[in-house]
Amino acid sequence: MTKKIGTGTYVFQNPVEVSAFASIVGQKEKEGPLGKYFTKYSYDEYFKQDSFEKAESFMQKEVLNDVIQKEQISPQDIDFIFAGDLLNQCAGSNFSVRDTPVQFFGLYGACSTMAEGTILAAMTIDGDFAQRAIALTSSHFCSAERQFRFPLEYGSQRTPSSQWTVTGSGCVLLSKSKNKENPHIKDCCPGVVCDMGVTDMNNMGAAMAPAAALTIRRYFDDTKTKPEAYDLIVTGDLGKEGKEMLKILLKKDGISFGKEYDDCGTMIYDCEKQDVHSGGSGCGCSASVLTAYILPNMIKKKYKEVLFITTGALMNPNTSLQGESIPGIAHLVHFSMN
Amino acid sequence: MTKKIGTGTYVFQNPVEVSAFASIVGQKEKEGPLGKYFTKYSYDEYFKQDSFEKAESFMQKEVLNDVIQKEQISPQDIDFIFAGDLLNQCAGSNFSVRDTPVQFFGLYGACSTMAEGTILAAMTIDGDFAQRAIALTSSHFCSAERQFRFPLEYGSQRTPSSQWTVTGSGCVLLSKSKNKENPHIKDCCPGVVCDMGVTDMNNMGAAMAPAAALTIRRYFDDTKTKPEAYDLIVTGDLGKEGKEMLKILLKKDGISFGKEYDDCGTMIYDCEKQDVHSGGSGCGCSASVLTAYILPNMIKKKYKEVLFITTGALMNPNTSLQGESIPGIAHLVHFSMN
Repeated sequence: MTKKIGTGTYVFQNPVEVSAFASIVGQKEKEGPLGKYFTKYSYDEYFKQDSFEKAESFMQKEVLNDVIQKEQISPQDIDFIFAGDLLNQCAGSNFSVRDTPVQFFGLYGACSTMAEGTILAAMTIDGDFAQRAIALTSSHFCSAERQFRFPLEYGSQRTPSSQWTVTGSGCVLLSKSKNKENPHIKDCCPGVVCDMGVTDMNNMGAAMAPAAALTIRRYFDDTKTKPEAYDLIVTGDLGKEGKEMLKILLKKDGISFGKEYDDCGTMIYDCEKQDVHSGGSGCGCSASVLTAYILPNMIKKKYKEVLFITTGALMNPNTSLQGESIPGIAHLVHFSMN
Repeated sequence: MTKKIGTGTYVFQNPVEVSAFASIVGQKEKEGPLGKYFTKYSYDEYFKQDSFEKAESFMQKEVLNDVIQKEQISPQDIDFIFAGDLLNQCAGSNFSVRDTPVQFFGLYGACSTMAEGTILAAMTIDGDFAQRAIALTSSHFCSAERQFRFPLEYGSQRTPSSQWTVTGSGCVLLSKSKNKENPHIKDCCPGVVCDMGVTDMNNMGAAMAPAAALTIRRYFDDTKTKPEAYDLIVTGDLGKEGKEMLKILLKKDGISFGKEYDDCGTMIYDCEKQDVHSGGSGCGCSASVLTAYILPNMIKKKYKEVLFITTGALMNPNTSLQGESIPGIAHLVHFSMN
């Protein structure tokens, strides 16, 4: 019996429970509009580590340990960890889990990693492989700038459409459903790689918006639902530019987003006051907003039906230097309190 | 009902079939001991593309299309592609699939990616999410040297324990079991990250051997089987040094490997004559040996029970420059003709 409907939305036989979650962020995120929701943060961008890269692994370790402690379990009770990040060879994740004896699947989905990991973790639970599985990701402004753009010391100018990589990490622990007071994952829609020929490395929102539109359109078609059925529809990190593009692209297909739509990249910063241009980005953007703001507000019943769509730009600096366009992807997870 | 036995071996409810597979390699691999098994190859290291990186994506596209053609299906008949490679941000895979409208999960498992993708693809099939799923990976000597070591033009000296990145790609198409003449996946054992403090970037075999030993030991404990139960036990790319280390590590635990044990890295090259020092490495090493040599020989009944254990060194050049040791991982897949 297949769990697939339509073009590729997967309905879980038994909704998968979000049993625990945790987040951590840096100073800029703590000082942003969602600041009060970030209870764990550091004003030291090194998080007391020797390098930005080690700081990123440290953040992941912190949220992973928080989740394990909150659930009052030991690592042995977790079947799988799905994790990834933006560092070359996903070093942030590989090093964060090396002291945690749990079976590990490394992912690379760029900024789409949080939903990618959540989907795969949920599938292993619903497929009777795992009792508990974790999705984990992070990003760090300083390690990302150094790797993808320029060392910070250069003080290079940023274009108006550029985004600011979030320093942050988020972790969710999924398990077989037992507590009805917790958010559940009802269904999901994994993304298809979509390349519309955008080549501007400083406009990731434009590269990712078509992928987001494709996944969202497929999901509404597959489930025969409309935006009004959800309290919150949130994309990962399209930023101001990408958010507007997504609305235009969807409007062409007869899908109109109202007040229920927002983007983690524009929620996490005050774009003007904090001088972040188009908004936040990075795997840690959607991951920290999900775990600090969205899921807690679901438990408080502010949001009952949430579509969480993380978006990734699947390029690297070399591919752009070699004249390639930027492929995008968007994975969708439907969280529900009903 | 969980499918887990022991510490983390997963027995599929219905064995997952390997319906089709394909490989492609470069000149050095074609000239090696397994040369006659590689029917698709190029003596042009660029594969007629503009860059080594594009050559790598080209190889992946070739094997992906081969598999689709062999199975006489269209991309729409495939539910998921799981792919990854060694390039920064897994660009080889991201670009290879952008013209193939299939739901995509990007992986990073270093040289362990082939078994990682195979395990996840099989889980989505056995979990009733997918009818067909693909595992795909690649590596390229020239893109890997440029990225991890030095541009080839430097002509840098290689240490005796260093390995030679295989130029090659492999793809398997898994599906719900229907043809008993095809190899099947009976069970699998995903790896745990294992860091024994090895810091030598030129001795990946030493960094990965402890992870391989851990997974193999766990698998034999979980399944209560011994090496003699298998016709072929093959590691991904430990090379000459790592292979010997693995035997020593396992012997300490009372596990003795006989003639049934080999390593794709030492099978694919004649280490002395081809001047590759410790042997082959890279995601494409185990992927091409699996798809050109192991699976065809299973269909010919030369091998009936195969343990395929791919090994990954989860570092990047920065982590080593920052003084970190090299975490390893090993994922195991059990292919069977019975």
